[in-house]
Amino acid sequence: MTSDLALNDSPVLAVARRAREAAARLAPLPRRAKDEALAAIAEALVARSAEITAANAEDVARAREAGTAESVIDRLTLTEERIAAIAADVRSVVGLPDPVGEVVRGYTLPNGLDVRQVRVPLGVVGIIYEARPNVTVDAAALCLKSGNAVLLRGSASAYRSNTALVEVLRAAVETAGLPADVIQLVPGESRDSVKELMRARGLVDVLIPRGGASLIRTVVEGSTVPVIETGTGNCHVYVDAQTDLAMAVGILLNSKAQRVSVCNSAETLLVHQDVAEAFLPLALEALAGAGVTVHGDEAVLKAAEGTSATVVPATDEDWEAEYLSYDIAAAVVPSLEAATEHIRRWSSGHTEAIVTTSQAAARRFTQLVDSTTVAVNASTRFTDGGEFGFGAEIGISTQKLHARGPMGLPELTSTKYVVTGDGHVRGEGTQTVGG
Amino acid sequence: MTSDLALNDSPVLAVARRAREAAARLAPLPRRAKDEALAAIAEALVARSAEITAANAEDVARAREAGTAESVIDRLTLTEERIAAIAADVRSVVGLPDPVGEVVRGYTLPNGLDVRQVRVPLGVVGIIYEARPNVTVDAAALCLKSGNAVLLRGSASAYRSNTALVEVLRAAVETAGLPADVIQLVPGESRDSVKELMRARGLVDVLIPRGGASLIRTVVEGSTVPVIETGTGNCHVYVDAQTDLAMAVGILLNSKAQRVSVCNSAETLLVHQDVAEAFLPLALEALAGAGVTVHGDEAVLKAAEGTSATVVPATDEDWEAEYLSYDIAAAVVPSLEAATEHIRRWSSGHTEAIVTTSQAAARRFTQLVDSTTVAVNASTRFTDGGEFGFGAEIGISTQKLHARGPMGLPELTSTKYVVTGDGHVRGEGTQTVGG
Repeated sequence: MTSDLALNDSPVLAVARRAREAAARLAPLPRRAKDEALAAIAEALVARSAEITAANAEDVARAREAGTAESVIDRLTLTEERIAAIAADVRSVVGLPDPVGEVVRGYTLPNGLDVRQVRVPLGVVGIIYEARPNVTVDAAALCLKSGNAVLLRGSASAYRSNTALVEVLRAAVETAGLPADVIQLVPGESRDSVKELMRARGLVDVLIPRGGASLIRTVVEGSTVPVIETGTGNCHVYVDAQTDLAMAVGILLNSKAQRVSVCNSAETLLVHQDVAEAFLPLALEALAGAGVTVHGDEAVLKAAEGTSATVVPATDEDWEAEYLSYDIAAAVVPSLEAATEHIRRWSSGHTEAIVTTSQAAARRFTQLVDSTTVAVNASTRFTDGGEFGFGAEIGISTQKLHARGPMGLPELTSTKYVVTGDGHVRGEGTQTVGG
Repeated sequence: MTSDLALNDSPVLAVARRAREAAARLAPLPRRAKDEALAAIAEALVARSAEITAANAEDVARAREAGTAESVIDRLTLTEERIAAIAADVRSVVGLPDPVGEVVRGYTLPNGLDVRQVRVPLGVVGIIYEARPNVTVDAAALCLKSGNAVLLRGSASAYRSNTALVEVLRAAVETAGLPADVIQLVPGESRDSVKELMRARGLVDVLIPRGGASLIRTVVEGSTVPVIETGTGNCHVYVDAQTDLAMAVGILLNSKAQRVSVCNSAETLLVHQDVAEAFLPLALEALAGAGVTVHGDEAVLKAAEGTSATVVPATDEDWEAEYLSYDIAAAVVPSLEAATEHIRRWSSGHTEAIVTTSQAAARRFTQLVDSTTVAVNASTRFTDGGEFGFGAEIGISTQKLHARGPMGLPELTSTKYVVTGDGHVRGEGTQTVGG
C-alpha cells in the first residue's frame, strides 16, 4: 500500500514515490494517450538534438581524458544521425499493440460468474544499465507504452547525456498531457543510490539490470525488489550424428562469429562422435577463416592437426566461459544425451542449437534442453526480440519466473482478475443476493 | 548450471541437488507417467493410513502436552477419513490437464522461421508452510503434475506426520517408475535450514511460503531464490451511490462473515456518501446479527446510533488491518474515486469488490483498482483457485511478477522458445545455409 509522502524521504525514495503516483495516473490511460506522448518524444528528440549532442560532448570529453577505449567511447557517442535513429525507434513503438487491457483468458463459470484475466502495467519499472545512452530512450518508450513509470539509472560516464535526454523526454510527455514523473532519472552517482533502489520493495515493482555479470549479480543477490535477470549467454551449437554438413558449418559460423560480443553468440561447439571425422575439419577451417581460436578437448585437438586452426587445450573454465570474443570451446560427445548433459551442466541457460536431419533427434534435443531458447537448424543469433517479431525488446531474461527469453511489451505487464456477477455469494453452492 | 555433486554439501544443499537431478528426469515425462504416479500416491495413502495416523498421533500428543489450542490441534489432526479425502483430492489432480507442453503462442516469421513458446516445468519448487499436514500431499501432487520436483518444509509441530506422509509418497512414486527424489522433506528443524534453502539460488527455482505475515516477510526479504508471495488480504467492499441495497448487504455479509480467518474475507467497508443514509442502517444491523464489531469513521459512528451494532472509533491501524476475525473497518467516502484512493493507500492488493447498478461505475472502479482481483457484484470470497475453476490451487499470489491471484498448475511452469528453421542464419536479411 502507499503511505503519505514521507517528510524525510531520501532523494531516491522521493523519486520512487513520485513514480508510484505517476504510474497510478498513467495506468488507466488508453493507448492513444500514450502514443501521443511517444510521438511528442520522437519530435522533441530531433528538435532538441543540439542540446543533447552538446551534453554528450561533455561526457565524451571526460571519457577521453580518462583514457577510455575508443570502442567504448563510440558506444557513448550521440550524433544527430544517431538521435534521429533513436527517434525513429520511438515512432515504431507507436505502431506496436498496447499490451494493457489484453484479455489473457476469460470464461463463464458453471454458477454464471464471468472471469476475465486482463493485462495491467507492472507499475514502476527500474532499469539499471551501463554505457549506451540510447537505452535511456528505448527503455522509457517501452515502459511508457506498457503503462509503466520508469526509473532510469545509467552509468556515470553517460550522466550528462542521460540528464539531457531525460529532460527532453519529460518535457515532451508533459506537452502530451501526461505527468512528467512517468520518466525520471535515479539521483545520486554512488552505489548507495542503487542499493536504495534495490530495497525499495513496495515502491518499485521490478528492477531490470542490463550490463555485465558483476552488476547483475549484485542486483540479483541484494534486491528485495523483484528482479528480472538478463544473464550471460554461454550458448551451444550441437552437431548431431545425422546432419547436413554445410548447414552445420554455416550455422556454427553465424552463431559464433557474425557478432561475438553479444549474449546470443555461441561459445561452445559439441559434435557427435559419429560425424566428428567428417565435420571437424570443415568446421575448424571455417573457424580459422573467421579468426576464431578453438579451445578443444583431446578429440578436437587431434582433428585440428593439419588444419590452419588455432587450437588450445580446453579446461573446465572453457566449458563455463562466455568469451564474448573470437574464441570457442569445442568437444566431441558420444551421444545426443551426452550433449544435453554437458549443456545441463555448463550452460547459462540462454540458447542451445542443434543441427540435424533427424526428426527424432530434433525432437529429443528439444525435450531435454531447458534454456530460454532451443534452436533447430537455425543460428543461436535469432534469440532476439526484434528477430522474434516483438517489434521491441527490453532485454533477454535468463531466469525462469515471469519472463524467459526475449522480453517485449507483454513482459512489462502483470495481470489482474475481474470477476463479474449478479450478487453472487459463496455458501452451500453459490447463491445470488439482491438483483 | 549444475556442478559436480559437492562432497561437502550441507544436508539442505544435498537434498536440493538431488531434487535438481530428479527434476531433470521428470521434466520430459508425458502426462500419463505423472498421472500413474499420482494414482499410486492416492492408493498408498489409503493403504498405509494406519502408519500415517500413528505418526500423527505422536505429533498431536506433543502438541497437547505443549498446551496448544484445540483449534490448532484440530488442524494438525489426521484421521482415516481425512486421509481418504486427501487421497481423493490427489485423484482429482489426475483429471486436470497437464500444463507442460502447452503452446502459449506460436507463429511463423516473415523469413520462414517457426517460433513456438511452450510451457516447461519450473524445476525445483520449495514450499515452506505451517500447520496443516495435508499441504504436504496437496503441494506434492500439484508439483508432480506440473513436472516439478518439490522440497517440503513443514512446521516442527507436524514433523512426524510429514515424515510419514513423505515416506508413503516417495515409495508410491517409485513403484510408478519415477525417482523418489521428486518429493523430499527439507532436513533440519531450525531456522538455519530454511535460510539455506532461501540462498540456494541455482538449485531451487522458486520458493512459495504459505503461512503468517512474519514467515512470508522473512522469506521475501532474505531469499535470493525467487519467491512467490502469498500475502495478506485486507480486502474491501465498496458500495456505490447507485446500488442494489439488498445485494450490497448480502455481498458485504458474505465477504466478511462467511469465513473470517481467510485471506479473501473482507476487512474494510467503504460506502458512497449519497447512499450512506439508506445503506448503513441495513449494513450495521446485518453485521451486528453476524457478531461483527465495526471500527468506523465519524459518519459510521453516527449512523450506528440507535442500531444494535457494536462500533468503535477507527484509527489508521484499522484501515491497514487484516483482522481475520469478526471485525471490520468502515468509512463513508465522497466519491468512487475517493474509494479507489483509499484502496490504493491501504489495501494489501488482494481483492476489492464494488456493488453497483451503474455500468459506468463498475467500469471505472475496475479500471482504477489494481489488486489481484476486482469483483463486480460478487463476494470477495470468490478469489480462490477452486472457485475460478482451476481444479487445484497452490496458493494466492499477491505479488505482480510471474503469477497474480489464485495459482493453479500453469503458474508452476515457466516457458521456453523453440525456433525451427532450414539452416537459417542472420546477416543482411536472413539467409539459409545448407539444406
